[in-house]
Amino acid sequence: MTTVAQWDVFEDSFEGPSSGNPFLEVKLEAFFQQNSRVVRVPGFYDGDGIFRVRFMPDNPGEWSFSTKANVADLDGKTGNFTVTAPRDGVHGPVRVANKFHFAYADGTPYLPFGTTCYAWTHQPLSEQVKTLETMAKTRFNKLRMGVFPKDYPYNVNEALHDVYQKGADGQYDFDRPNPESFRHFENQVKALGELGIEADIIMFHPYDRWGYCDMSEAQDYAYVEYLAARLSAYRNVWWSLANEYDFLLNTKPMHQWERYFHILEENDPYGHLRSIHNGDPEANYDHRKPWVTHVCIQNWDVKRTGEWRLAYGKPVINDEPEYEGNIIQVWGSISAEELVHRYWITTMRGGYAGHGETFANSDDLLWWAKGGELHGEAWKRIGFLRDVMQEDVQNGFEPIDPTTRYPWNRVSGARDGDTTIIYFGEHQPVIWSAGLPKDDGDYHADIIDTRNMTVEPAKIVAAPENHPTRHGATIVQRKPDAAFAVELPGRPHLALRVRAGKRV
Amino acid sequence: MTTVAQWDVFEDSFEGPSSGNPFLEVKLEAFFQQNSRVVRVPGFYDGDGIFRVRFMPDNPGEWSFSTKANVADLDGKTGNFTVTAPRDGVHGPVRVANKFHFAYADGTPYLPFGTTCYAWTHQPLSEQVKTLETMAKTRFNKLRMGVFPKDYPYNVNEALHDVYQKGADGQYDFDRPNPESFRHFENQVKALGELGIEADIIMFHPYDRWGYCDMSEAQDYAYVEYLAARLSAYRNVWWSLANEYDFLLNTKPMHQWERYFHILEENDPYGHLRSIHNGDPEANYDHRKPWVTHVCIQNWDVKRTGEWRLAYGKPVINDEPEYEGNIIQVWGSISAEELVHRYWITTMRGGYAGHGETFANSDDLLWWAKGGELHGEAWKRIGFLRDVMQEDVQNGFEPIDPTTRYPWNRVSGARDGDTTIIYFGEHQPVIWSAGLPKDDGDYHADIIDTRNMTVEPAKIVAAPENHPTRHGATIVQRKPDAAFAVELPGRPHLALRVRAGKRV
Repeated sequence: MTTVAQWDVFEDSFEGPSSGNPFLEVKLEAFFQQNSRVVRVPGFYDGDGIFRVRFMPDNPGEWSFSTKANVADLDGKTGNFTVTAPRDGVHGPVRVANKFHFAYADGTPYLPFGTTCYAWTHQPLSEQVKTLETMAKTRFNKLRMGVFPKDYPYNVNEALHDVYQKGADGQYDFDRPNPESFRHFENQVKALGELGIEADIIMFHPYDRWGYCDMSEAQDYAYVEYLAARLSAYRNVWWSLANEYDFLLNTKPMHQWERYFHILEENDPYGHLRSIHNGDPEANYDHRKPWVTHVCIQNWDVKRTGEWRLAYGKPVINDEPEYEGNIIQVWGSISAEELVHRYWITTMRGGYAGHGETFANSDDLLWWAKGGELHGEAWKRIGFLRDVMQEDVQNGFEPIDPTTRYPWNRVSGARDGDTTIIYFGEHQPVIWSAGLPKDDGDYHADIIDTRNMTVEPAKIVAAPENHPTRHGATIVQRKPDAAFAVELPGRPHLALRVRAGKRV
Repeated sequence: MTTVAQWDVFEDSFEGPSSGNPFLEVKLEAFFQQNSRVVRVPGFYDGDGIFRVRFMPDNPGEWSFSTKANVADLDGKTGNFTVTAPRDGVHGPVRVANKFHFAYADGTPYLPFGTTCYAWTHQPLSEQVKTLETMAKTRFNKLRMGVFPKDYPYNVNEALHDVYQKGADGQYDFDRPNPESFRHFENQVKALGELGIEADIIMFHPYDRWGYCDMSEAQDYAYVEYLAARLSAYRNVWWSLANEYDFLLNTKPMHQWERYFHILEENDPYGHLRSIHNGDPEANYDHRKPWVTHVCIQNWDVKRTGEWRLAYGKPVINDEPEYEGNIIQVWGSISAEELVHRYWITTMRGGYAGHGETFANSDDLLWWAKGGELHGEAWKRIGFLRDVMQEDVQNGFEPIDPTTRYPWNRVSGARDGDTTIIYFGEHQPVIWSAGLPKDDGDYHADIIDTRNMTVEPAKIVAAPENHPTRHGATIVQRKPDAAFAVELPGRPHLALRVRAGKRV
């Protein structure tokens, strides 16, 4: 009996017709069953007369399947297999949890700390090896990556694969995906999965010289369906409908974007996360729409994170708060210190940020597009932030004041369980109490140096009794903000962590 | 014949009644005349039976005056005097110039680089001497200062003077100003004037334990009239109706604020600058009202400077973009680097910023309230910025893109005459061209290090021809942004200055 571990991929393949256009003409689906539960899974044509169905079981035990197809060779195929416990470190696909946060299917909190290598799967294979090696040594656990190659400044090289087959006339036939290209892409998705990294798969983007941007509406729909059929069974798949969808509205009007979402809902039986990313900061998609699972945004103005949470009521991932680098494009030239600062602000306001690196070099090997190696300083400090949050995360860090009233419009503070973290950024008070616990108790305080990546104990002192503040006839009572205060070193870019109880 | 220099103060005094309440009951005004021109000037009671009129002549030559009063002793007094050319360094009062900027009456550009010592005139005299000494060694040319003392955290000491006289019952009589207090205040205004420093006089503020906040509407109006009569003749007077007027609305409703403005218009014959300062960042006064000469604002979010220019169509002074310091109040705890950064952003977006310093110390001697000595690092770098701007100012630095579209929402750039300055802040490109001159010519470029206060020549190179950017079906033409580009060192907090022609 075939066995497969829970949340790994079960796959079976069948021989069928190769004449005509099997991509368009052959309809294959499989029904996977455990007791009375049935899960419909679309199959796909992998070229050379081979058809496949892939399935990600989410429950251990005995499973069986049977196929339905519009050609006899593929219809009524059956099989069964045993699902064993998940392999070590496998927690299943990531879901939205606690409204503004994420968790794996087994309930383990997932903190998205993503980076961006838009076209890494279209670079020479030796570069792709480097990208995976680099990812393995970072703390990034999500990678934004496009299916299509990229044509853009610093991105003028040829693509590794044609994503669609070329006809006898040398022109692309957008009714015939190139299985080699998709096999390579999904192998890299799988490789990321083995590293514990989510693949945030960008289905469309505007930066194209091959014609992928100009496929017909029907071809786009077939493409989305094909992607869903091939890739959904990989547990680490996230669907990112677009990088900068608003720059594509001239070829793909709004109703198509809604249909792409719906095709995913119809063909991805696991309900992987679905998002869509804007270009113009004022052109956010209406992320309240029910088919959007979380907010994906690009915006440098990260103190607005709370505003986006309130506007959309979903987890916020700001994937492009500008990139660490030094290129002439202003979105790709912030310092490491600034990107780390924006990460802390974003996360301590209840959102999540994304990384990218754009250092000019004579070979045009910029991480943000091609992967390879990291040259900057932000990634280590972002990894440190992830470590800090992982230590205490339970339900997700929620902003101390979701309405971001004073002082929470200026400094950033969040709480998860009995851990409070306040990031002061450009502020450098020598004492602090706002947002700290109001009840007496046994607390422990640490100063976190976000640049030097150190954690040092801090001194808890009595909360200061301020002189009253008058607003004309009104005396503004200045009760202590908290049960105590903490002394701070009086330099910028520090965070304060307060935990209930002493921990070893 | 008495002589007085243009824009200095001519004063005459007369004996009159001291019985009853001369502050309220005696009406005195003088009409100053040169040829057919007549300027009405209100007089004031200075105690001990002495009444005064003060006049700031704005034109050299022969002047005469005659008085009108409702008591015979003061009515029909006359005199004449000669006005000579202004003393060296005296340029007259500051006016709005070129819509968003300022100039002295003689046309010399005035760049407001102000700081804040709210209650310095109410500190011990030895501290006040220190304040003036400190001001003299800085490049600040404006000081925000209140008439009334302050009751607030770090401000619990007694006031130097009662601003109003106390009656036999030991209670303040808010119908009787204390001339000694006003004499002291105006002497300090004059002392600042001799240092070339404008006095931004705050008439009302909410932080009061003496009862000045709770004077009646009629008493407030008499107070404004008294201030105008005593102080208008000092050329360096600016009228700031309030610090944080919105925190005073519970005792002083909106119609009173408008009347204060009108009383100034009626009693200040020189039309000194008039502004009003908010507390809550969302409670800006409607600065479009015609009696407001310029926008006075407090807001930490300085990248919004262009928005305020567009909203109000007047010069924007952001007097409180938070203060350099380390106190527990979040508005008083930013680093020197951050305040300098906010200054550069503000000025390179066509606004002006204000300084304050709030370092905790055991004697509660915080510059922002009490003056004394500066302890921080921002003031020198702010002085350096002023020097940089003074070198090239003609009509005032105007933003390269007043609508602050990309990239001017992220970096800040301004131009005055043939000088362009671009402040990159957290950005660190190694090459730049956007916003530089589009015409070929002879240009010189410098890198300005805003932290180290250095200016070094920069290399002009050919503008890069970027690979075209596609937005779906649309090719976004990437013509070079300018006639040339400049190489930069690739580190943050730099500015680029480009001037036409070589200068020695």
